[in-house]
Amino acid sequence: LNFQFFDFRTDTQNNNQTNIDLDRGYLFGDGFFTTAIIQDGKINHQPLHQQRLNDSSIKLKFSGFKPEQLFEYIDDKIKTISNACVRITVSRAQQMRGYAFSGNEKINVCIQLFSLIEQPKSFCELFFADTPISNNPFLAGIKHLNRLDNVFAAKEIKKINQESLMCIDDLVICGSRTNLFIKQGGVWLTPKLDKAGINGITRLRLIKLMREQDINIRLRDISKQQVIDCDAALVTNSLLGIWSVCRIGDKPLATKLSENLKYQLNIKR
Amino acid sequence: LNFQFFDFRTDTQNNNQTNIDLDRGYLFGDGFFTTAIIQDGKINHQPLHQQRLNDSSIKLKFSGFKPEQLFEYIDDKIKTISNACVRITVSRAQQMRGYAFSGNEKINVCIQLFSLIEQPKSFCELFFADTPISNNPFLAGIKHLNRLDNVFAAKEIKKINQESLMCIDDLVICGSRTNLFIKQGGVWLTPKLDKAGINGITRLRLIKLMREQDINIRLRDISKQQVIDCDAALVTNSLLGIWSVCRIGDKPLATKLSENLKYQLNIKR
Repeated sequence: LNFQFFDFRTDTQNNNQTNIDLDRGYLFGDGFFTTAIIQDGKINHQPLHQQRLNDSSIKLKFSGFKPEQLFEYIDDKIKTISNACVRITVSRAQQMRGYAFSGNEKINVCIQLFSLIEQPKSFCELFFADTPISNNPFLAGIKHLNRLDNVFAAKEIKKINQESLMCIDDLVICGSRTNLFIKQGGVWLTPKLDKAGINGITRLRLIKLMREQDINIRLRDISKQQVIDCDAALVTNSLLGIWSVCRIGDKPLATKLSENLKYQLNIKR
Repeated sequence: LNFQFFDFRTDTQNNNQTNIDLDRGYLFGDGFFTTAIIQDGKINHQPLHQQRLNDSSIKLKFSGFKPEQLFEYIDDKIKTISNACVRITVSRAQQMRGYAFSGNEKINVCIQLFSLIEQPKSFCELFFADTPISNNPFLAGIKHLNRLDNVFAAKEIKKINQESLMCIDDLVICGSRTNLFIKQGGVWLTPKLDKAGINGITRLRLIKLMREQDINIRLRDISKQQVIDCDAALVTNSLLGIWSVCRIGDKPLATKLSENLKYQLNIKR
């Protein structure tokens, strides 16, 4: 065990509260993040990542958050980097004891660079995770820091080409680190994300491109049986791009329709 | 904005991954905690807090967690402290990128001392929070670090003697920082916590004492209307002890029955 010890008790001489300089991201998961690819000194799809961070800051009441200042800082840091992954985490400093926040807290930004991960060489095998996804309509869609459900759904994955599907009872929401699209009767469907899940950047791009190209795409409630019975499936995120599904549980699935869509849209991660 | 920048890219010369020494408590809320009172150099109800931390470590697969080592460290740190609050947070270090963990991660323990908060002088006014509680049967009961729902339910509180009630649709689960007990037709009821909520130390103590003294106490699904119609109510946590409720929304509530129970059980925080 690696110990840290802080004494924040009031200085009774001056009756001043010691500044509680711990991060609420750590204490409560009070913050949000995005993960992107850096190529040739720039963040891929930067306006979408900036929009996501700004939307998250509004929803979670980070009133002092300045996305322009953030990207000015990052742009300078990454201008000589040819390729990498980046995670940008935004959280609040702790100002007082307890769950509530004042809204005047200092905002902490943590930027982590990682080596660029390769796109998977084999197709994706899906299975239904035992770990349920947390159902909370207020938090649904946001890439916030409360991700224990993703942690345990991802922990269920045993092979590099697997992804686990997270559900609320019979309702399928997303993969442990991806969004889900299935094709059924000539129509593409993707879960609505009104109860849980993250509204991914690649999901947004895919929906926009499909609508522009008059490909039928609908946001729907999707049951486990609908996933099992689908004609094609793919999962998406900013690091993987589009990943075609070749198996759902015990059942093999043809990748022709999902690969066709991928080439038709010519979507790069 | 307060920036931190980390470059974890692989050293391409040696093909070694740089050690990713960030905390998963911060990255994902991957950890758990407890909050207790210190009196005369000792943690009140220490065995129950130790049991909670141990149970959480098992549920969240912190296989290297050693509660004895933790309390040996703390006991030494607090032996001269006459009174304080303490928060003990246990989290995993990050070993690899992404949600999944290996199980071999270093375990971080953060101990924070605060000045002892006074027990409230006035009775508690309850209202139903607009913020829903996150519904996840796997995580229910555990005092884990994914507490954004508590953060926003607590943020709805405008007065020092208020507590907000967190619900799943019509089902009442708990207060933003407390457990709930209501009395109805001579029987005390408390929510089951099989979908959400924290199984509080004071809740456990109360249930045990009531059973020992043959006071009728049942763990049940409780609706909003049942709370509104109750004959008495109280909320509990380790810092507040038992807090009698004098109002639910617009409706005043007599505190006689809850205060009677408090004195009968002679429960101290």
